[in-house]
Amino acid sequence: MNLQELFGKRVRELRQKQELSQEALAFKAGIDRTYMTSIENGKRNVSIQNIEKVITALDVPVKDFFASDIFIEGKK
Amino acid sequence: MNLQELFGKRVRELRQKQELSQEALAFKAGIDRTYMTSIENGKRNVSIQNIEKVITALDVPVKDFFASDIFIEGKK
Repeated sequence: MNLQELFGKRVRELRQKQELSQEALAFKAGIDRTYMTSIENGKRNVSIQNIEKVITALDVPVKDFFASDIFIEGKK
Repeated sequence: MNLQELFGKRVRELRQKQELSQEALAFKAGIDRTYMTSIENGKRNVSIQNIEKVITALDVPVKDFFASDIFIEGKK
């Protein structure tokens, strides 16, 4: 998996942990819902400004967001 | 500082630690040198595909790249 796909996987993991719908997270992040769906599906070459919006909306420090084993296992 | 600027700051930190020139890192990452300069200066809304190219070229795991206090102090 590439980083784009791993990023989507981690967003989904955190969103579901917080029991947020994609729509709710998209709204919080100020991002269109369909754009959020494509981010989670790893289909979007998301920009760092939108990465920041999503991570901020998930209310997780950047360090913690990327401290997940998703970014290790995924790379094998 | 926003994430775009913090990302650039961290790239510069790691590049200089490895005593690489911007040109050398840009070449390793397959990115244009001027693009790399703008990334380091926090002026580029860099995409996740290019983020992956740069982190891979720095030969640092994603987790370790973002485990830096740059991403904490910078956010204050």
